[in-house]
Amino acid sequence: MRALLVAYTPDGERVVAIAAKMSRSRKGWGYHHQTMTDDEIETWIKDAILHGYWSVLEHSVYTFSIEGISRVASHQLVRHRVASYTQMSHRFAKPVDEYYQPVTPPSAEKRAGELIQRAYEDAYKHYYELLSAGVPEEDARYVLPNAVNTNVVVTMNARELYNFFSLRLCSRAQWEIRAVAWQMLEEVRRVHPRLFKYAGPNCIIHENFVRDEPITLDDVLADRVEFISQRCIEGVPREGIPRCIKKR
Amino acid sequence: MRALLVAYTPDGERVVAIAAKMSRSRKGWGYHHQTMTDDEIETWIKDAILHGYWSVLEHSVYTFSIEGISRVASHQLVRHRVASYTQMSHRFAKPVDEYYQPVTPPSAEKRAGELIQRAYEDAYKHYYELLSAGVPEEDARYVLPNAVNTNVVVTMNARELYNFFSLRLCSRAQWEIRAVAWQMLEEVRRVHPRLFKYAGPNCIIHENFVRDEPITLDDVLADRVEFISQRCIEGVPREGIPRCIKKR
Amino acid sequence: MRALLVAYTPDGERVVAIAAKMSRSRKGWGYHHQTMTDDEIETWIKDAILHGYWSVLEHSVYTFSIEGISRVASHQLVRHRVASYTQMSHRFAKPVDEYYQPVTPPSAEKRAGELIQRAYEDAYKHYYELLSAGVPEEDARYVLPNAVNTNVVVTMNARELYNFFSLRLCSRAQWEIRAVAWQMLEEVRRVHPRLFKYAGPNCIIHENFVRDEPITLDDVLADRVEFISQRCIEGVPREGIPRCIKKR
Amino acid sequence: MRALLVAYTPDGERVVAIAAKMSRSRKGWGYHHQTMTDDEIETWIKDAILHGYWSVLEHSVYTFSIEGISRVASHQLVRHRVASYTQMSHRFAKPVDEYYQPVTPPSAEKRAGELIQRAYEDAYKHYYELLSAGVPEEDARYVLPNAVNTNVVVTMNARELYNFFSLRLCSRAQWEIRAVAWQMLEEVRRVHPRLFKYAGPNCIIHENFVRDEPITLDDVLADRVEFISQRCIEGVPREGIPRCIKKR
Repeated sequence: MRALLVAYTPDGERVVAIAAKMSRSRKGWGYHHQTMTDDEIETWIKDAILHGYWSVLEHSVYTFSIEGISRVASHQLVRHRVASYTQMSHRFAKPVDEYYQPVTPPSAEKRAGELIQRAYEDAYKHYYELLSAGVPEEDARYVLPNAVNTNVVVTMNARELYNFFSLRLCSRAQWEIRAVAWQMLEEVRRVHPRLFKYAGPNCIIHENFVRDEPITLDDVLADRVEFISQRCIEGVPREGIPRCIKKR
Repeated sequence: MRALLVAYTPDGERVVAIAAKMSRSRKGWGYHHQTMTDDEIETWIKDAILHGYWSVLEHSVYTFSIEGISRVASHQLVRHRVASYTQMSHRFAKPVDEYYQPVTPPSAEKRAGELIQRAYEDAYKHYYELLSAGVPEEDARYVLPNAVNTNVVVTMNARELYNFFSLRLCSRAQWEIRAVAWQMLEEVRRVHPRLFKYAGPNCIIHENFVRDEPITLDDVLADRVEFISQRCIEGVPREGIPRCIKKR
Repeated sequence: MRALLVAYTPDGERVVAIAAKMSRSRKGWGYHHQTMTDDEIETWIKDAILHGYWSVLEHSVYTFSIEGISRVASHQLVRHRVASYTQMSHRFAKPVDEYYQPVTPPSAEKRAGELIQRAYEDAYKHYYELLSAGVPEEDARYVLPNAVNTNVVVTMNARELYNFFSLRLCSRAQWEIRAVAWQMLEEVRRVHPRLFKYAGPNCIIHENFVRDEPITLDDVLADRVEFISQRCIEGVPREGIPRCIKKR
Repeated sequence: MRALLVAYTPDGERVVAIAAKMSRSRKGWGYHHQTMTDDEIETWIKDAILHGYWSVLEHSVYTFSIEGISRVASHQLVRHRVASYTQMSHRFAKPVDEYYQPVTPPSAEKRAGELIQRAYEDAYKHYYELLSAGVPEEDARYVLPNAVNTNVVVTMNARELYNFFSLRLCSRAQWEIRAVAWQMLEEVRRVHPRLFKYAGPNCIIHENFVRDEPITLDDVLADRVEFISQRCIEGVPREGIPRCIKKR
């Protein structure tokens, strides 16, 4: 599985910061574009995030090519409605030969590695037989396993990414989509570190809604903070939250 | 497969008509609610639809329970983003025993009935073995076939239903989601016939955008009209469109 | 100003509870509809809200007729994008004679009552002169004050209402849209008290994300709780939050 | 009034074309990125648009700074819900002195130029008096005219732009938002001519849904085509459509 960042708003951090400032200013884009310093960019972004002024984050947008995920994961992915998707269609693109790469869950790999490979091989055999019997591709695929690999091009803005991360980085999320989310986070932090500084699972997002000094994912991983939350929204009590985050 | 209408805006046709009228009027809801006649309701609805004033249709909303569809179909269904979904989770609800009812495509039933049943049985056996080997449900399901049955509660407003129908009633749509769409259409036409009078596949919707006298699905089924469209958006030429619609 | 609830999902609380339960169950709508008790409805709703399982709230939908608000308020209202709007158009419905009822802010009423009435009269006079000079309605309205009254039909689902309330019940919200929000809250609590039990401004919503025992607006108004939040998202420190809420 | 394109997806046409191709292909982004020719880009875009495969257009995104429009126009603009907005707030940014630049409709300029300027001056005077009387800015602005100028940062993807243009380039649209739409069209055609080749008012969009050979705005302006539509969706008969478009 790979989640590649293939396009994004150039200078998106500046775009977000200027938009935020323009809501308070009477001057136009040209003026702010010329005068805004790097420090200001950081300040406007931080302020927007910590005071729940999320809408300005929508002006920076990211396109990913997510390749080799199962249809278990893709079905969950496309449930995020504030995003754009283009998915490889098994009606038109037959997953045969080297293109049949069903995803194996680590838990199954460990406990029943041969078993699950046999299941995938049997499914493939049946798929092939149906095709040979003249069943159209779009119907033969009914016997393919949920694990079957697919590719999805996804476009999300920074606000929706924050929301996506809050739900899918959480250790309660299903392992595969969680892995996708962590890769996506790494990709966007690489190009826009200031914009995604406060991204994290819901326990961190919600903590920052109610505390004076904001915390980051890195703070938690380095054991630099104590939560004031009594529990996370999933019900994990205060003491358990950092351990839960570190599970990744 | 069943698509049951389980809730909807009471008197939704009147709600839509009043909203449409209020955009042109200075009087309030109370006045229009008391004075609007049945004829007026019909006129305001028809006018809104035929002049592309679609937004008023959003005020009438419908909830369906769609039961016993495959994850092939549910994956397509949830791609419609202007809607609300609650789906039976295979992480928590194991599709075993009488609850394992994978969907069989008619094309496979006819050409390879035994073959596909064997495929479904093999998948089930493998699924069971993985569970027995201690693989968690959420991972064991990777070997379940795409055909595996699921239930989804769906809420859509009348405008989005028009859009959903335009895409999914079309004979180019995949057979299972097309069957769902036709059932949904029957359900809503039963309760709000005036609101869904002009619903149909895109060939009909687009034809009505460009012609003087609007046509309905029933007109086409009864051979009462000739299209002025040279082709439908999918590329079917004028002469072929009615036959294409009748295929259902 | 009036915010009237004119349509809503009948038995919407049951609809939400059944949808929530169906995500964990293998049985269909019919079964749950027959067997779900009132206690269960309350439990499923509470659980959904307190664990951030918000999407099920989308299945219950509400239509309001909001009448006699200014275009200052309507411009803010329509910024909530997950909703449906039909607005009285000043291109087609002239706000003249008894239909010209510009909204007076209480702060102006108190400090400069005559002044503001004169401003509204002058604007009206200019509007009328422009119409008399043959300027089309859609252009003459450029001189009407932002205060000019309008009507909007709004449809929102329960999830979006929670979001709308969280932002607009807050004492930092502009007074007129805040007054609209409080009226809307009263309307929906009247028909679906269990569904809106935990609705409130963001300070309450965020507090409930992080605490063991949930609190309600009524708890705060009755001084029954202490916040664990160090600050609300707007920056009000813990001690000030209850007073801020009571300002209403 | 100015509508400036301030950010957009770099190489957005290629992004859209690759996404479209990937829905039919088993290969990943890297392969297509290396192998796709300029001719292919054009073909995939054209095919997507002419067969209603609009969703791929969502992967190319545009941010505009729209400056100096009236609140009449901004109120209409923000009704397009599939977009992101950050608006200059009159709660925080006082439109005084050189920043008070209310928009004058051409029809009023011509027929009642002095009258409307007086109206704007009177309103300004009243606004100032209210501020002097201690009325807060957010309330004093109730007497400002609808014409008062504002700035909005807007982000829309190419699909939503097509929709926005279809409604707002139309001669039935209100003159000011129409002027904004034409400027936005020029901006995006400058950077992505292939992607916006078929953009236009609804008469052109709908015509292309039903005809064999697609037409463009330029074709109509150059009198190179005859419509097969009997009427546009607004009711203009076939013969009148080109003239209507040329009005601009």
